[in-house]
Amino acid sequence: DRHSEAFGFIMLYVRHGHLRFVPHMCELSFYNEMIYWGLEGSHLDYCCQRRLDDRMSETRTFEEPTSSVAAQVRATVSILLVIVSMVVLCASTLPEWRAPENRSVEEQSRYTAESVREPSGIIEAICIGWFTAECIVRFIVSKNKCEFVRRPLNIIDLLAITPYYISVLMTVFTGENSQLQRAGVTLRVLRMMRIFWVIKLARHFIGLQTLGLTLKRCYREMVMLLVFICVAMAIFSALSQLLENGLDLGTKNKDYASIPAACWWVIISMTTVGYGDMCPITVPGRILGGICVVSGIVLLALPITFIYHSFVQCYHELKFRSARYSRSLSAEFLN
Amino acid sequence: DRHSEAFGFIMLYVRHGHLRFVPHMCELSFYNEMIYWGLEGSHLDYCCQRRLDDRMSETRTFEEPTSSVAAQVRATVSILLVIVSMVVLCASTLPEWRAPENRSVEEQSRYTAESVREPSGIIEAICIGWFTAECIVRFIVSKNKCEFVRRPLNIIDLLAITPYYISVLMTVFTGENSQLQRAGVTLRVLRMMRIFWVIKLARHFIGLQTLGLTLKRCYREMVMLLVFICVAMAIFSALSQLLENGLDLGTKNKDYASIPAACWWVIISMTTVGYGDMCPITVPGRILGGICVVSGIVLLALPITFIYHSFVQCYHELKFRSARYSRSLSAEFLN
Amino acid sequence: DRHSEAFGFIMLYVRHGHLRFVPHMCELSFYNEMIYWGLEGSHLDYCCQRRLDDRMSETRTFEEPTSSVAAQVRATVSILLVIVSMVVLCASTLPEWRAPENRSVEEQSRYTAESVREPSGIIEAICIGWFTAECIVRFIVSKNKCEFVRRPLNIIDLLAITPYYISVLMTVFTGENSQLQRAGVTLRVLRMMRIFWVIKLARHFIGLQTLGLTLKRCYREMVMLLVFICVAMAIFSALSQLLENGLDLGTKNKDYASIPAACWWVIISMTTVGYGDMCPITVPGRILGGICVVSGIVLLALPITFIYHSFVQCYHELKFRSARYSRSLSAEFLN
Amino acid sequence: DRHSEAFGFIMLYVRHGHLRFVPHMCELSFYNEMIYWGLEGSHLDYCCQRRLDDRMSETRTFEEPTSSVAAQVRATVSILLVIVSMVVLCASTLPEWRAPENRSVEEQSRYTAESVREPSGIIEAICIGWFTAECIVRFIVSKNKCEFVRRPLNIIDLLAITPYYISVLMTVFTGENSQLQRAGVTLRVLRMMRIFWVIKLARHFIGLQTLGLTLKRCYREMVMLLVFICVAMAIFSALSQLLENGLDLGTKNKDYASIPAACWWVIISMTTVGYGDMCPITVPGRILGGICVVSGIVLLALPITFIYHSFVQCYHELKFRSARYSRSLSAEFLN
Repeated sequence: DRHSEAFGFIMLYVRHGHLRFVPHMCELSFYNEMIYWGLEGSHLDYCCQRRLDDRMSETRTFEEPTSSVAAQVRATVSILLVIVSMVVLCASTLPEWRAPENRSVEEQSRYTAESVREPSGIIEAICIGWFTAECIVRFIVSKNKCEFVRRPLNIIDLLAITPYYISVLMTVFTGENSQLQRAGVTLRVLRMMRIFWVIKLARHFIGLQTLGLTLKRCYREMVMLLVFICVAMAIFSALSQLLENGLDLGTKNKDYASIPAACWWVIISMTTVGYGDMCPITVPGRILGGICVVSGIVLLALPITFIYHSFVQCYHELKFRSARYSRSLSAEFLN
Repeated sequence: DRHSEAFGFIMLYVRHGHLRFVPHMCELSFYNEMIYWGLEGSHLDYCCQRRLDDRMSETRTFEEPTSSVAAQVRATVSILLVIVSMVVLCASTLPEWRAPENRSVEEQSRYTAESVREPSGIIEAICIGWFTAECIVRFIVSKNKCEFVRRPLNIIDLLAITPYYISVLMTVFTGENSQLQRAGVTLRVLRMMRIFWVIKLARHFIGLQTLGLTLKRCYREMVMLLVFICVAMAIFSALSQLLENGLDLGTKNKDYASIPAACWWVIISMTTVGYGDMCPITVPGRILGGICVVSGIVLLALPITFIYHSFVQCYHELKFRSARYSRSLSAEFLN
Repeated sequence: DRHSEAFGFIMLYVRHGHLRFVPHMCELSFYNEMIYWGLEGSHLDYCCQRRLDDRMSETRTFEEPTSSVAAQVRATVSILLVIVSMVVLCASTLPEWRAPENRSVEEQSRYTAESVREPSGIIEAICIGWFTAECIVRFIVSKNKCEFVRRPLNIIDLLAITPYYISVLMTVFTGENSQLQRAGVTLRVLRMMRIFWVIKLARHFIGLQTLGLTLKRCYREMVMLLVFICVAMAIFSALSQLLENGLDLGTKNKDYASIPAACWWVIISMTTVGYGDMCPITVPGRILGGICVVSGIVLLALPITFIYHSFVQCYHELKFRSARYSRSLSAEFLN
Repeated sequence: DRHSEAFGFIMLYVRHGHLRFVPHMCELSFYNEMIYWGLEGSHLDYCCQRRLDDRMSETRTFEEPTSSVAAQVRATVSILLVIVSMVVLCASTLPEWRAPENRSVEEQSRYTAESVREPSGIIEAICIGWFTAECIVRFIVSKNKCEFVRRPLNIIDLLAITPYYISVLMTVFTGENSQLQRAGVTLRVLRMMRIFWVIKLARHFIGLQTLGLTLKRCYREMVMLLVFICVAMAIFSALSQLLENGLDLGTKNKDYASIPAACWWVIISMTTVGYGDMCPITVPGRILGGICVVSGIVLLALPITFIYHSFVQCYHELKFRSARYSRSLSAEFLN
């Protein structure tokens, strides 16, 4: 039968070192055998991984038809509300939308009072209501309240929702004098924290989950990347400041007046962005610039490839496990 | 004989996990065995893949000498006409070519009437005639008319040919008042749609076919790339707008007046293009800029490598199958 | 027992070509067997390498609890002092810190005399004292004095420490006339050599050690990269100078007045930095620019990937050996 | 003995699919067995390839001590002369060196007559003399004169040497009126062709030979890269010209006046160089710009990775064969 067939294939792997998933095989019994023998998705060839991925996805969609309808509706509403709130946030910074702020003071005070009843205010209220409800429901149905609070995605939820209520409270308490307050920096910062709602999309896109898991596992490589960049920045910025500004070779390049200023040039050059707002003029400075750019390309490429390998592995793991346990892993890691 | 030799090699593969194509072997019987045993091009080592590719190409050219002469002539004419029409389209936008438009109104009207008889007009007419004829002939000889209409390359053909006839009709119906019409936007847009003729080259270059097939198969990775870019753009543009413009740290950077404006800076920085038309001035804005650039390099690299693996696989598949079925696959996928 | 288990696994590898490190196995006996049979970290799959890495790290921390406390304190102090001295060096170039230099001459002379007693002077003295002490202690406890002097990291130590004492001596001997001297270039260069202290971090970060070992082993690939860049720079700079400036095609582009000036454009274009301080104007110059950029991308990618492969191998080697010999390799290579 | 040992290892490979070169083995008999069984360098693991490379290099240097001394002297002289002539060519374009051209006409005529006796003229004459002699000697000692003429490196030699003699002849025949001629374009072009002497370095650097062989073998991938770039340039330049200039959306961006002008922007954006001399202003133009940049990164990465695989293979092939046949392959391919 199918189970013994899968078992036979795994045995063949142990003997010949090549694991293949053939089209007419049962994907679930095959995967069960893989788990039992401690094999992972990366032991399959690329084409077989893909074939298994596809079959797993089909299986999952077929197995939970009732739950998936409700879940898909909820997911679609969440995604739409995130997108709508992002669009409103972006639009609110456009000059055409901010024009009313230039009105007279009387109009201003009326305007401020009505701002909650405006379209953008209503949309904001709807979004924040939905997200708060979603968050509360998820907290109530969660089995382990203590663990729920420590999950990164829930902390982000909290950090994204709270500022709205704080800013509402501030407007209520400061009352009519809020025009002065409005211009303040605090409210603008609180308002902008709403941008982290986009991280909620991670619940619905496996790509973003993979990214999160990769960052979690690759902290050593991230630190390596950071150390490389910092060391290179320190050396190249100090040398470029010396060559361009300190040595008095003909012209004193004002752009390289200090090492922190030169740091900006180094990071923009090493990553090959090159805005051109500052660039070396002297011959030794340009030679250093060339060395800086080439070593930047080499340095950045090295740790990134480590990260890439982890990313591929995380992607296939999440795919496999989400198919097997019906999202239990993603729930465990990311709920 | 040769068949049993190929069979023997495939057996060796099943036992030892390494498939090799040796020079003195019959490539067709070897490939037949591979297909039978469900093996794909990617199970060969890179050097053997290349050797088999080369031998397959030679075989095909040798086997269909009569058809290939006619087909090559037709292909060469098509490629040449596409290139010629592209050159004419490019040249027509040069200031030296557009100079006659500045003539007096009387000259203009005469000029417009004669424009079809001008060299560029004649070349356009020839090209459109050939492409229309090619399209009609291909439709007549196709076995399944219904499927023919839904193939992407045929839809592109239609989208590229139709605008010419619409613009001719518009000129005919609007008559002598067409000078005013000429300046209009519609005709220019219709005219520019001719640029999609270059996609016709996909019929003749296996590289472009591979690209098309890769995009078709990698829609999940394309979506992942798009989601990564959108999420990063949302977060970084909002933060940079806040730091550069919203916080009133010394100077208010007018370039970052709104989030959509900051989006342009984010995409240009994350892809390391860095035009320099806008760049951060404040210290926190520059620190954010550095983080944005480095995370852009990491984020973009991750899904692109997935796409690359698919591309390599598609390339070898198209190569093998086009040799085996005499272009039947490319006909199936891309006709 | 555990040793025979590891032996059995290695035997399986010799027979089937796939080496795996399973979770319940003793990592040290497994590694001993690997060393005995001449196998290296790169013969393991990526996931097994990672698992072995993690287990090795845990083992090491557990085995030397007493020494690690003292070592970690010493390491933390060293890292902190390096960072503090770097911050002081950076801050000392800021305009706000250099303002006192604009004081009157009388104040200047007093200022100079007191500069050693200022906060930044005291921090410098503490750092240099610690590094000198560390260097001397390390020299005394080293078994082979002759070899100690030739190790690259020790030479860097010496080059970073000596300039401070030289500049102190110079200030002492030149006495009160040091105001004039202060403006001189020599002291500034000596002061800036302090930046190489960051390379001391290599003693504490395996990433930087890996980088050093990679550069040491990849000298052939580095030379290849250098030759590629030089040859491409020679050809493209000469041609661009000819096309933009030498041929008198309409406008004479002053930026490309000489080949060395064009070299700067070539390196900035080939590495895709593109500051925009100079760029071609003529049509042939722009065609050459496009070719230059594309060939730059191809040329730079080729040797860098060789370097990358060495980097991955060096990383796993250093990880394995540092776990096995308790830093004896890193001591041997980098002390 | 050693031969049977190598034979045994190859047999192990045929059985288990993993070929390894162990340190105590004779590298030449091992390589002979590899050649006999049709195995190539890429069948070895990366670390074994490297070990074999190193041992092969040592073997070769040891085996031909007499010839290598003469050969090394000749090679060193050639490399030095190429570098010297490049430096002279670069220096001759510096403003300080060209100053004499601004002298009065009488001085000019004297100067021209003496220019051959000047230091730079003498260096040029020595270089050209050496290269001519080297070329003639190589032609005389070559066995197959007909094939010698068709080798690419010899054609480059001829193209680099001839212009010098043509320019000398021109100066001689035009005589005293050469002042006017001097300003002419022809002599400057002839003079600049000297830059191709750097390609002579390919005789002495295996990296440049590998590059040449890679370009020769990867012509299909180069064509693919070219087709991708051309198709993308056609589509994006036409669309950007339409959106930025053709549609009259508020401002008419003069930089995008014609499609050829927009082509320059497209190639500079797709390769992520981004000089910033022209960039889109309108919102649709910027959206198109973002798409153009991202698709450029994807498009360029795909064929380059093919080229990279060929490069690695060519590198190991050249290394192995040059060790085995004492440069006979490089002679065959590149002499």
